[in-house]
Amino acid sequence: MTRIHCHLEIALVHYPVYNKRGDIVSTSITPFDVHDIARTAKTFGVKRYWLVCPMESQKQLALRMMGHWQEGRGASFNPNRKEAFDIIEFCPNLEQACLTIENELGIAPRLIGTSAKLSNKRVEYQALRKELSESDRPHLLLFGTGWGMAAELMDKTDAILAPVGEGSYNHLPVRAAVAIILDRIIDREEV
Amino acid sequence: MTRIHCHLEIALVHYPVYNKRGDIVSTSITPFDVHDIARTAKTFGVKRYWLVCPMESQKQLALRMMGHWQEGRGASFNPNRKEAFDIIEFCPNLEQACLTIENELGIAPRLIGTSAKLSNKRVEYQALRKELSESDRPHLLLFGTGWGMAAELMDKTDAILAPVGEGSYNHLPVRAAVAIILDRIIDREEV
Repeated sequence: MTRIHCHLEIALVHYPVYNKRGDIVSTSITPFDVHDIARTAKTFGVKRYWLVCPMESQKQLALRMMGHWQEGRGASFNPNRKEAFDIIEFCPNLEQACLTIENELGIAPRLIGTSAKLSNKRVEYQALRKELSESDRPHLLLFGTGWGMAAELMDKTDAILAPVGEGSYNHLPVRAAVAIILDRIIDREEV
Repeated sequence: MTRIHCHLEIALVHYPVYNKRGDIVSTSITPFDVHDIARTAKTFGVKRYWLVCPMESQKQLALRMMGHWQEGRGASFNPNRKEAFDIIEFCPNLEQACLTIENELGIAPRLIGTSAKLSNKRVEYQALRKELSESDRPHLLLFGTGWGMAAELMDKTDAILAPVGEGSYNHLPVRAAVAIILDRIIDREEV
């Protein structure tokens, strides 16, 4: 078990994603996605956790929930939560996240998609781990909500990580998928 | 990546666990623990997911929430959730879970604890994976809530799995810990 050093950021995409019928929609922010994924990302040394959501009202709702843990009683009761929330940043679309990273670091991030389905741009965990540990370039790992990221977004990725599961039942919550994927690419020697 | 075949059950323990001050308490059932861990466990082929909780009112609340996804509109909207809930069983204490397994299979389960802290009964992921794949004996893997399982419970375990994280910030949600641990012992060749 060796933890690699790299510049990795992650994004949870609320638009454009599919709903159950295959329409492109914007999903609501799930408070547990904010909490769980921030704590998991912080544990694995992820530099920033982007919440990609064009709806200002959703952002305000999430900020209000986060405020409870960042100020006053919540912050003193559980300071670890505040620390995890420090890596969160909101953006209305993925382009803005990429531009911010490029402005800060002088180089655009490599975009890596994730999906429960197989893709022809598939990259394996071991290969991504190697790429991350050897590259100076920032990487942005994308996770979808709803019934998955829209094709128009997936088309813009440089590679798509192999699916996590392989059994007949394969319905991991996105919170679990983030945890497993970060563990596989950041903490594992052999995957 | 080879998925092993084994008889693994998991338990989420709501009593006896510590609160922040170190008192032994019974925690409330968190709906997201029910949802997320059931889906993750089902994905990794776990045979049963025990909710260990002595409070009948908490069980009733969880059953009511589960009912939404098991009957009527919820069940038809998202049948995967119903399927995941089928592996859930409630019990007021861990002894009852162990007795049920022993009555069903004719042999008591080996009890494996998990903890964010180091233990002198520590077992590594690779060793547990090997034991699980070679043994006919059922295994019951325990996860704590609150500030961790009470010492009186941990003392009864046959072994305690090594902590997941190793960094300076190590505050994984239990839902993420379950996902990573099942991935490491069920799906990974080298851990």
